[in-house]
Amino acid sequence: MTGFTPLSARNAAARIAAGSLSSEELTRICLDRIAEREAVVGAWIHLDPERALAEARRRDRAGSGPLRGLPIGVKDVMDTHDMPTAYGSPIYAGHRPAADAACVALARAAGAVALGKTVTTEFANAHPGKTANPHNRAHTPGGSSSGSAAAVADGMVPLAFGTQTAGSVIRPAAFCGIVGYKPSFGLIPRTGVKPLADSLDTVGVLARDVADAAFFAAALSNRPELEPGAAMPTPRIKLYRAPEWPQADAATHAAIEAAAERLRRAGAEVTEEGAAPEHQDLGAAHKVIMEYDSAGCLAFERLTHWDQISAILRERLASGAAISGAEYDEAWRIVERARLALPRLLGEADALLVPAAPGEAPRGLASTGDAVFNRCWTMLHAPCVTIPAGRGPNGLPLGAQLVGRVGDDARLLRAAAFLERALAD
Amino acid sequence: MTGFTPLSARNAAARIAAGSLSSEELTRICLDRIAEREAVVGAWIHLDPERALAEARRRDRAGSGPLRGLPIGVKDVMDTHDMPTAYGSPIYAGHRPAADAACVALARAAGAVALGKTVTTEFANAHPGKTANPHNRAHTPGGSSSGSAAAVADGMVPLAFGTQTAGSVIRPAAFCGIVGYKPSFGLIPRTGVKPLADSLDTVGVLARDVADAAFFAAALSNRPELEPGAAMPTPRIKLYRAPEWPQADAATHAAIEAAAERLRRAGAEVTEEGAAPEHQDLGAAHKVIMEYDSAGCLAFERLTHWDQISAILRERLASGAAISGAEYDEAWRIVERARLALPRLLGEADALLVPAAPGEAPRGLASTGDAVFNRCWTMLHAPCVTIPAGRGPNGLPLGAQLVGRVGDDARLLRAAAFLERALAD
Repeated sequence: MTGFTPLSARNAAARIAAGSLSSEELTRICLDRIAEREAVVGAWIHLDPERALAEARRRDRAGSGPLRGLPIGVKDVMDTHDMPTAYGSPIYAGHRPAADAACVALARAAGAVALGKTVTTEFANAHPGKTANPHNRAHTPGGSSSGSAAAVADGMVPLAFGTQTAGSVIRPAAFCGIVGYKPSFGLIPRTGVKPLADSLDTVGVLARDVADAAFFAAALSNRPELEPGAAMPTPRIKLYRAPEWPQADAATHAAIEAAAERLRRAGAEVTEEGAAPEHQDLGAAHKVIMEYDSAGCLAFERLTHWDQISAILRERLASGAAISGAEYDEAWRIVERARLALPRLLGEADALLVPAAPGEAPRGLASTGDAVFNRCWTMLHAPCVTIPAGRGPNGLPLGAQLVGRVGDDARLLRAAAFLERALAD
Repeated sequence: MTGFTPLSARNAAARIAAGSLSSEELTRICLDRIAEREAVVGAWIHLDPERALAEARRRDRAGSGPLRGLPIGVKDVMDTHDMPTAYGSPIYAGHRPAADAACVALARAAGAVALGKTVTTEFANAHPGKTANPHNRAHTPGGSSSGSAAAVADGMVPLAFGTQTAGSVIRPAAFCGIVGYKPSFGLIPRTGVKPLADSLDTVGVLARDVADAAFFAAALSNRPELEPGAAMPTPRIKLYRAPEWPQADAATHAAIEAAAERLRRAGAEVTEEGAAPEHQDLGAAHKVIMEYDSAGCLAFERLTHWDQISAILRERLASGAAISGAEYDEAWRIVERARLALPRLLGEADALLVPAAPGEAPRGLASTGDAVFNRCWTMLHAPCVTIPAGRGPNGLPLGAQLVGRVGDDARLLRAAAFLERALAD
């Protein structure tokens, strides 16, 4: 079901550059796949095929840049000047922004075709959209980047944008069996992305493999070093049993331990480490930081459109508005201690190996699942990559996650490319 | 010329709460002052007196909150759902945002009346608007919060919002002879404020005295501790001769040294310190960070509206787009070293005393002056307050600046209240 098209983003871009494929042809392939599968998957909140094809023809006529001609999915928390942008909220139904989000403008300037807007949960928080998991429509695709993850997993589009404030890139990628990359905080510009928690919100990417994810991020950020290129010969990976490790299920424990074993056999140095004491209180700190920040970021909606906010977001905003500045500062002190501990925890390792989620995508679409394995790294501003790592008891994907040093995304992506190959062998 | 109304924001709020003044009356006083002086000062880019009076009457009928009934100026980089918002750029002429910026929503929910939109430089960068210095119309008011500073200084409004990415709150406040307060990074939410450099942009406030500035910020941030309350008995202040100290003129050197002497006489412990080696390269680092970030934040405008961008901003955006990710990371490493050095530099002191600007407001409106005494603190995310400190050779205001610990704005504001009293005596 996934990977119906043999074209990776890199290969498609190379073929377009060589003239053996046009952007219009590739866009039609994507649109055909969407026409076939959208009723089941529900990945898109806005799609105008004629507009997308016109954009593709413009790229065929006068495009340039590394992403030339590549259709991408744009999460609907990102402003687009030529498509409605509703942030997953009825408050903004039909809203037409004046500008493209910076990441969209950069992608378009690098040659990409903004195919359409993908489903997001309400304001990238918890209240779900319509998207189902393409592997089994009775299960959540994860969130908040639900539509982007499902669209990439289902072969509707080679690349898509996500955002992560708790676990909104890594978790849906893992649930949908694709690669998700949440860069170090701030690596991809956030202007024009609806803020949920200003100190945490991070733009990320969804792709079918690590090289495609790195290729996309490099094209957006003036950071060619992100592309893994030649393999890392013998990465050093530390299997980290963080405080939340017991919250993963048996299949996930087995998958992560099997990934460690595969890494060893492929030539990596693998060590193991138990929970750092500095990481014990991060879950509680994330709740304080995210709720306080959300009550600020969504102040207009909270104070003037309360009736149009979901029950779960109302609860979080009310909780956030009641948190004092002093409590918020104390939560950041906990995070600061954990940040200072991260280099020590990594030691000589290139990356930490941890679960991407507690298990397979849960059944039902009412919840997008638990961010327990993601929020700590988002708070630490550390780069994360998830890679498919087998299947769980329901036949749904499991994800292994690698976590790197803040600001050294290139090293993390090289390690991730190694893990991907080790798992594929 | 300044302070034509005896009402401080706090006193006006108290009178409105007591029923001895209505918001409509106060709004009319402000509008009358604007009618009298706007042709000279040019502080406002959008002002609809009828809309403002209607909002004031709504507050009189059903307002609540600490800012109840107080007219405020809203810098035109902040979205307003009921007033046009052009970010100081012809690209956005007539733009009508769908929402209020979070800080505007919070101010309104706290009872404030958004009187109108104040002039900003283009995207809060360098290209000036129409505003003149209310003390001498041949001189710049400073920027980028030009209109907000001039409006408060000229008695058009008791409080106004500013933003600072280099020196855009502190410098215009100093040039206009009022109090400017740039909080620790992130203290006031930024959602709906047009980003210029995401890692630096900070919402600040302009007021006629320290207590009013603190009162405004406290009402926006769920941080009652910001209000100085009882005076700090014997603050410890360190006169810091930063690397840029020689770039201030003789009058400014004299004003800062006189302020130190006033502090001593008022009972403060005053020490002195020379330039920290970690601060030597901050100016160059700021240029790299701000230009790189701006090229990202303004990607849409840069890539699709180049012809409508000023020459000076074009130059900076072109420069920023040419900076590699690696150079940007290196600039942050320089900042990180300086950040780690700040607690050591402060030592036991409550605040550093430094100039707010190199001197008086320069002659002419083509430039808004030099941010050399501001950008380092913005980059360090440290809270800053400027307080009027006498006059220069042209009879224009000079400003003393106090800089505090990141996250301890309350302590800084108490020290600032002490300095203000010492200078007034």
